[in-house]
Amino acid sequence: MTTLALHGSSIEIAPGALATLGDRVAALHPKQRVAIIADQQVAQLYGGKALATMIASGLVLGSTVGGTVAPGLFTFPAGEPHKTRATWAALTDQLITAGHRRDSVFVALGGGVTGDLTGFIAATFLRGVPFVQVPTSLLAMIDASIGGKTGVDTPAGKNLVGAFHQPSLVLIDPQFLRTLPTADLRSGLAEAIKHGIIADGSYFSWIASSLREILNAEDADDATHLRLVQRSVEIKVDVVARDERENGVRKILNFGHTIGHAIEHVTGYGVPHGDAVAIGMVAEARVAERLGIARVGLADTVATVCDAAGLPVRLPDGAAPAEIVTATRTDKKSRGGKVEYALPEGLGRMAGAGFGYGIPVPEAEVLRALQDL
Amino acid sequence: MTTLALHGSSIEIAPGALATLGDRVAALHPKQRVAIIADQQVAQLYGGKALATMIASGLVLGSTVGGTVAPGLFTFPAGEPHKTRATWAALTDQLITAGHRRDSVFVALGGGVTGDLTGFIAATFLRGVPFVQVPTSLLAMIDASIGGKTGVDTPAGKNLVGAFHQPSLVLIDPQFLRTLPTADLRSGLAEAIKHGIIADGSYFSWIASSLREILNAEDADDATHLRLVQRSVEIKVDVVARDERENGVRKILNFGHTIGHAIEHVTGYGVPHGDAVAIGMVAEARVAERLGIARVGLADTVATVCDAAGLPVRLPDGAAPAEIVTATRTDKKSRGGKVEYALPEGLGRMAGAGFGYGIPVPEAEVLRALQDL
Repeated sequence: MTTLALHGSSIEIAPGALATLGDRVAALHPKQRVAIIADQQVAQLYGGKALATMIASGLVLGSTVGGTVAPGLFTFPAGEPHKTRATWAALTDQLITAGHRRDSVFVALGGGVTGDLTGFIAATFLRGVPFVQVPTSLLAMIDASIGGKTGVDTPAGKNLVGAFHQPSLVLIDPQFLRTLPTADLRSGLAEAIKHGIIADGSYFSWIASSLREILNAEDADDATHLRLVQRSVEIKVDVVARDERENGVRKILNFGHTIGHAIEHVTGYGVPHGDAVAIGMVAEARVAERLGIARVGLADTVATVCDAAGLPVRLPDGAAPAEIVTATRTDKKSRGGKVEYALPEGLGRMAGAGFGYGIPVPEAEVLRALQDL
Repeated sequence: MTTLALHGSSIEIAPGALATLGDRVAALHPKQRVAIIADQQVAQLYGGKALATMIASGLVLGSTVGGTVAPGLFTFPAGEPHKTRATWAALTDQLITAGHRRDSVFVALGGGVTGDLTGFIAATFLRGVPFVQVPTSLLAMIDASIGGKTGVDTPAGKNLVGAFHQPSLVLIDPQFLRTLPTADLRSGLAEAIKHGIIADGSYFSWIASSLREILNAEDADDATHLRLVQRSVEIKVDVVARDERENGVRKILNFGHTIGHAIEHVTGYGVPHGDAVAIGMVAEARVAERLGIARVGLADTVATVCDAAGLPVRLPDGAAPAEIVTATRTDKKSRGGKVEYALPEGLGRMAGAGFGYGIPVPEAEVLRALQDL
């Protein structure tokens, strides 16, 4: 088992870790009541097993309220469209009705949507209760579950409402990846590729040469998945540990995301997150080339690897460059009206260490980079 | 001017302080955009003056979005029934539409409802932006604006959803009290009386002998109001400074509130907060007597002073003792199913220092104390 520490969170990576969930929660939160939150699909696949480990460890799931025993598993419909204030409010009310109070701990069992939503429920439940992340997707394992960002979407954009709230435990079981659909593996892979570009050129190269083993759904390669998850988690933890509240180095994690979020926004979230990030990375690498920050050729290298991974590297139909530029203005990284970008100098190296890694870019340059795709 | 510091907040008390609001915000948050949030009544009374001090200090109020200049003042209908997730969501969306982002700071101008609501908006806006409290009611000045508690109500109870988020500045101008309706002065006075009981017996006595000067609406006594606000703020700051997250001594601030909240709940918030706290203090003092924690007579002393202040000391019509006891179970101070009370040993002294000031009380004792009122 690999164990990392981050701002009070224990991050544990081990194949088969799901079976230890109850013991780990009981060790960290003795005598506290537990509720598992999952979307309906994940609940059906893994809810029973997760509940069973809780019960085996003697944890109290729910409580008797009005004569009926409250359930230990709370669900909502799967998908980003349900990561809303409405779902947050409904689940909060259900948890209160079920008798949960300050002595409760909530377990997020699922992908990034479930983690962000459950984290925000925990952050705001009676002004904050602890929570545990059990990520089931690659994206959630290596990105969303680490760093304490929680939140929900609003009609104006993603994650516009939220809070920083560190999970007490992130329990990562790479064996969930055995049954993850290839499209979801690809989506997480976009973030792993990003980790290579922002922090470790040799990791980027390893991913490029391991795509078949990573994505092969029929004969999942546990060792490759474990290495992928471990190295990406190490990079993310290292970056976040140096900057919890995004005032400095954490900005490099936004590489590919300023344009990526804008693409998601203008397409009404019709493009999966990983796809949007892949296109965003190619476009932002092109911006770095145009500004003379990166040597010419970097964007092509990024595009080649993304393409080989089955990720898109061109703008989707109906996403006009000018519209995307306008949409970047609503990005929450905007300060004083100027949109700042995290840009690479080369593979494994980010520009702007001297001034917080946020590089204000003229909109005309972004527009040209998007038109070049 | 009196200045106190608490967990990163600067708390400043000075008659006429409203006129310095713009300068103080500009000094703490240079180059940040500002929005004032107020209920419609307070906006009408003081919104113009507050905006004028902002403009005079060169602060940017809102921004040009889509060709129109966004307003600097955002309002909602007055009253606790509007301290909801719906109002929070609507104001958040208006602020985003008006162009507010991470570089914004929000100013709560109003009573406790406005402060709690604005604080929760700021706590969750893009995962947290700074905010400033400008309390206009006695209750907000000496209680709600200090300590970083923010939140909104849900159908199941008050403040069940919220976050800890410290204001950067609490600017207290006791001259607002000149025009505060007597009923609202009384409501705040209940908290001041509480401060005396939990921490300073001589302050309790001073309040008892100064009720006429405090409550005289026709000839407001600025010096008495200043002393009242200063001493109560000192006590609250001292308690909160010793325990930000309510694991210990902060619990003494809940004196009168466990039963007070239950009374508000069973009456559908038909009883003003201060009234409910006054009844709650008398009842909980009686509980302390019944358990042998306080000498017999304390509850009568509390009742006498509350009554002289025009505060109720008996249960309102339609609030049955058994119902109130049941309602205490949903109180968020409940841990492991047992409701814990903060109970006085005598004037200025609270019991339970050795075990976190939370005293689990059998429901039968609470029921008898309520029946005795």
